[in-house]
Amino acid sequence: MISFESDYTTGAHPTVLRRLIETNLEPLSGYGTDPYCESARRKIREACECPDADVHFLVGGTQTNSTVIAALLRDYEGVVAAKTGHVSLHEAGAVEYTGHKVLELPQENGKIQADVLADYLRGFYGDEAYEHMVFPGMVYISHPTEYGTLYTKAELTALAEVCRQYELPLFLDGARLGYGLMSYQTDLTLPDIARLCDVFYIGGTKVGALCGEAVVFTKNNAPRHFFTITKQHGALLAKGRLLGVQFDALFTDNLYFEIGRHAIDMSEKLKRMFAEKGYEFFMDSPTNQQFVILTNEKYEELKKHVVMTWWEPYGEDRSVVRFAASWSTTDDDLAALEKLL
Amino acid sequence: MISFESDYTTGAHPTVLRRLIETNLEPLSGYGTDPYCESARRKIREACECPDADVHFLVGGTQTNSTVIAALLRDYEGVVAAKTGHVSLHEAGAVEYTGHKVLELPQENGKIQADVLADYLRGFYGDEAYEHMVFPGMVYISHPTEYGTLYTKAELTALAEVCRQYELPLFLDGARLGYGLMSYQTDLTLPDIARLCDVFYIGGTKVGALCGEAVVFTKNNAPRHFFTITKQHGALLAKGRLLGVQFDALFTDNLYFEIGRHAIDMSEKLKRMFAEKGYEFFMDSPTNQQFVILTNEKYEELKKHVVMTWWEPYGEDRSVVRFAASWSTTDDDLAALEKLL
Amino acid sequence: MISFESDYTTGAHPTVLRRLIETNLEPLSGYGTDPYCESARRKIREACECPDADVHFLVGGTQTNSTVIAALLRDYEGVVAAKTGHVSLHEAGAVEYTGHKVLELPQENGKIQADVLADYLRGFYGDEAYEHMVFPGMVYISHPTEYGTLYTKAELTALAEVCRQYELPLFLDGARLGYGLMSYQTDLTLPDIARLCDVFYIGGTKVGALCGEAVVFTKNNAPRHFFTITKQHGALLAKGRLLGVQFDALFTDNLYFEIGRHAIDMSEKLKRMFAEKGYEFFMDSPTNQQFVILTNEKYEELKKHVVMTWWEPYGEDRSVVRFAASWSTTDDDLAALEKLL
Amino acid sequence: MISFESDYTTGAHPTVLRRLIETNLEPLSGYGTDPYCESARRKIREACECPDADVHFLVGGTQTNSTVIAALLRDYEGVVAAKTGHVSLHEAGAVEYTGHKVLELPQENGKIQADVLADYLRGFYGDEAYEHMVFPGMVYISHPTEYGTLYTKAELTALAEVCRQYELPLFLDGARLGYGLMSYQTDLTLPDIARLCDVFYIGGTKVGALCGEAVVFTKNNAPRHFFTITKQHGALLAKGRLLGVQFDALFTDNLYFEIGRHAIDMSEKLKRMFAEKGYEFFMDSPTNQQFVILTNEKYEELKKHVVMTWWEPYGEDRSVVRFAASWSTTDDDLAALEKLL
Repeated sequence: MISFESDYTTGAHPTVLRRLIETNLEPLSGYGTDPYCESARRKIREACECPDADVHFLVGGTQTNSTVIAALLRDYEGVVAAKTGHVSLHEAGAVEYTGHKVLELPQENGKIQADVLADYLRGFYGDEAYEHMVFPGMVYISHPTEYGTLYTKAELTALAEVCRQYELPLFLDGARLGYGLMSYQTDLTLPDIARLCDVFYIGGTKVGALCGEAVVFTKNNAPRHFFTITKQHGALLAKGRLLGVQFDALFTDNLYFEIGRHAIDMSEKLKRMFAEKGYEFFMDSPTNQQFVILTNEKYEELKKHVVMTWWEPYGEDRSVVRFAASWSTTDDDLAALEKLL
Repeated sequence: MISFESDYTTGAHPTVLRRLIETNLEPLSGYGTDPYCESARRKIREACECPDADVHFLVGGTQTNSTVIAALLRDYEGVVAAKTGHVSLHEAGAVEYTGHKVLELPQENGKIQADVLADYLRGFYGDEAYEHMVFPGMVYISHPTEYGTLYTKAELTALAEVCRQYELPLFLDGARLGYGLMSYQTDLTLPDIARLCDVFYIGGTKVGALCGEAVVFTKNNAPRHFFTITKQHGALLAKGRLLGVQFDALFTDNLYFEIGRHAIDMSEKLKRMFAEKGYEFFMDSPTNQQFVILTNEKYEELKKHVVMTWWEPYGEDRSVVRFAASWSTTDDDLAALEKLL
Repeated sequence: MISFESDYTTGAHPTVLRRLIETNLEPLSGYGTDPYCESARRKIREACECPDADVHFLVGGTQTNSTVIAALLRDYEGVVAAKTGHVSLHEAGAVEYTGHKVLELPQENGKIQADVLADYLRGFYGDEAYEHMVFPGMVYISHPTEYGTLYTKAELTALAEVCRQYELPLFLDGARLGYGLMSYQTDLTLPDIARLCDVFYIGGTKVGALCGEAVVFTKNNAPRHFFTITKQHGALLAKGRLLGVQFDALFTDNLYFEIGRHAIDMSEKLKRMFAEKGYEFFMDSPTNQQFVILTNEKYEELKKHVVMTWWEPYGEDRSVVRFAASWSTTDDDLAALEKLL
Repeated sequence: MISFESDYTTGAHPTVLRRLIETNLEPLSGYGTDPYCESARRKIREACECPDADVHFLVGGTQTNSTVIAALLRDYEGVVAAKTGHVSLHEAGAVEYTGHKVLELPQENGKIQADVLADYLRGFYGDEAYEHMVFPGMVYISHPTEYGTLYTKAELTALAEVCRQYELPLFLDGARLGYGLMSYQTDLTLPDIARLCDVFYIGGTKVGALCGEAVVFTKNNAPRHFFTITKQHGALLAKGRLLGVQFDALFTDNLYFEIGRHAIDMSEKLKRMFAEKGYEFFMDSPTNQQFVILTNEKYEELKKHVVMTWWEPYGEDRSVVRFAASWSTTDDDLAALEKLL
């Protein structure tokens, strides 16, 4: 059985795991105060070219989204997000659970367009009854999006400008950021993102760690007592070393970027392989997931040997199927799949 | 520098770590659906002699407490806890953040007495205005308590009886359960706890794991859609394997109990060592932490070589200092400390 | 200055006010336990032909919506509502503040269509990831809707059937129910509504009372301890008599229906008057509000003598303007307006 | 049957009611924007000698407490209150429902002592683990307290000084403020309270209105968008006139103070009457409630003719019983009671 199911099906990248083993017996203080956390923070600030950034380590994606969003909003504010945003749809209402509305905007390929955002904000303050409504308090985007698509530098710059005009923090969910940064089709760098966003997170769970997300407040804008807020959300890890050691490894010798690049290389090979065999794509994907159209017959046949993700029906007798690459995808996996196609 | 700071200062027990390494490359489905989680659940049910128990893996203690408590309570209910309970004091209001009051009772050595609970409940329903008050909806205790003390079987049985009389679920926080179970002074077994409590958790973080707590609903009483509730609380780990593999290792060949026993042995040796050298104790501790009274001078001197936890002042020129043992405490550590005393 | 601004611009209907005056000096117990509340409950049950209904009096509409919705939902559930629903848009996120998502459906003239609801629910349980999503836990509609439109008996029956199929309570917001019931164009009676809905409220504030909404749980399905829940939401009035006396008056000698009918008669006269003078309507309204298209010039001119509500622009130089009738609208008001047109 | 049950058993003071009648037909804009609300705000600012105060009208006491407290606190903060505070005990957890802990302090006669508060605050910031705890974010007191007792000017000044030292807003719950201000034993005036507190409310419900509490932010410190926050809490009344007209009447020609004085006079007469007849008091009460010790036999006998409130048992065969005076208590009521004693 070969797996293209997701980018979180295998454990940690071997280098990350090795560092956990090497440091295992060192007694270290808890709650993110150990020297590995400190070192990881320093390296992340450097990689972001953001010397004043405040970096916090949390455990998982949904947790990070709801903690950061609740920390930035006042009670009467909501978070603006695409209708297809992860916080809108697939986090079991974690944001609403903290008392805040997700203000959903229409999207294009998973992305919020700057003019759509500007129209919404203008309309909000143009509405006579706006004081009876939830105030837009920040903007949430994901990059790569839930569809694996990417903002261009121009698009992100335009979004950031609208946000600044209305004094709304821009928050980028980078659960799969490594794949976005190393896409063949992106013009956005990590320093660009740090410059344009007010806060974002660098996903570890889906990019080679066992768990962990690094939240970067880029402009000295970490909410007061964010440590306590994290604790209140159940998001403060006692053995903070588990996160510190992993992110220290990921940001040593460019490992985070190499993991991203490897998965992108594998994904591009997948794309070429399917294309050469005459398969159609549901959409063009610049990141580590390919959405391929298979006949249902072919899908059922493949299922015996391959783990992949059924996405949605495509006409009468075909389906969209997602193939994901990760740090652990090998050329052998690809060869085995090719043989089956 | 030798460390008696806490039981979460070193990484994972070597056997736990080895299993993470061995399984690292296996592609496994996420969110707790992998076979290691399944195997760990089975082994935990067996160890609890509780074949119908529903077992869920969460990441940390505060998270587990607030998720379980919020899941069990209706909006108008609060959780009864000792004034010194972890949920009352040291979780940054995580329970209140979910909308529920912690109804604080007086304690004795960190424990709630059955008659105090019974009096409170009788009084609550005896109060004419009780419909204007927060209803007691469940009872929270910790074992070992925040003071390292233990309930006897008689005490826990009495508490459980009061809970049943008033139809309140009894929830036991077992962040350090392993040390409680292996204390030289306990008459409570894991099956006893499973029988007497409606839900409890088996702490991993402080008993040899990198992270992780195993919640056991003992009586087919897991709240509906607890999976979704966990997600909503940001407590659902994508790479659930990290928890499954660790708990599977901890409940293979009695490792969890061996870890507990080792720390208890070390703690008892600490106790003997201090006693033989004429030190006084702040209280008698049956578990893995010893509370010793040091002169401030001695404390300052030791601090150069030993990491320990200052607890509180004791008279003019002495202090209570906590020494904690864990899976990684060695006889060499003890010998080094003895030399310094 | 004549006012067609809204149905809550004048005080109480004279009969309601008279009863407040007559009972003012009687000492009565608080919190809804007085005999006027009891009598009002009895009369409402009779008017609804719903002898087992549980009736509670709350103060205002937003408060009633968020209290009832929070009381009926479990933490992991949200309320399904039209995108234009009052709870979705104009209640400052009061529902989200209680931790619940408003699951927004597309609407037609402010109404949810039964097939749209059925499709949504089927799709929800058809989604592989549904356990990561907010569960639909109840359905909210308003009648009249925010646009002043009405469900037909067939439409409400179809909606109720879908709700029952999926075991979701159907909640009807009747802030302006009196106008819906007395519309010339409705085939729905109060007993129909009580039969088809699981809970609804009879609006007092906008139908002749100073304040107050009567919540009717029609099927012995009031949530446990709803009294305490109401208190927790700050929605329990100490001098409950203020609500009891008013609703007792409104449901004596059909006053509630007469108030509704009077406003509908006035609204129909408004409609005829505008039509005869050649004005166009933005939409056909069966209730107490008429949406008329005026040139901006005419609007500015009228504004000097008439209070009305500007709604939205209509093309380049025209606007939609709302004229509302209420219990206190008189033929003199209409005559004065006619003269100005 | 004569009633000394409470100060909210009769309707509105006749002057208040008369103003409601006189203004009933005037069309007025909603949500507190009408001229009566404006006039009431002006008069309250004058009475408080607080020209910059921001005044908002809410409907009830619990609602006011939870709205003001939630508006002033950040997520990680709680409200400090006496263990016997109304928010601690008798509001069904309304504060916790908004996500905030009530940090309970010991009390003396219902009052928080300044030194107890100072010790608590010093200890909080002295605790090494304070970042894992709920931060004290404001202080709540009631005046009169739940026991009918009063702060002296010296006591309130001392409390205010501690609050200022720690930069905590001081919030005074004045549900029965009128009785406190007119007590024979107080040295605190309304301007004193406005000067010493950061926010307080002037209770209407229990001092002659049908409903309504006037919140006074005394130092230009109303939270941003308090209007929207009020709406989100379901505390914004559509017919705001109901509150505006009543408070305008209460603050015209000193009516509020006269109502308070009348009840105090009646209460002092009650006290004298009981004392002269040899009854003992449970405590000395300076406000409108007297706590008298009756034999159970006497209590049962009186119950046939008098409505009063049983408070608690007093020894074997006696009870503490509360007699409350209000705007509507008459000399005839007293004479009738005297006859029965």
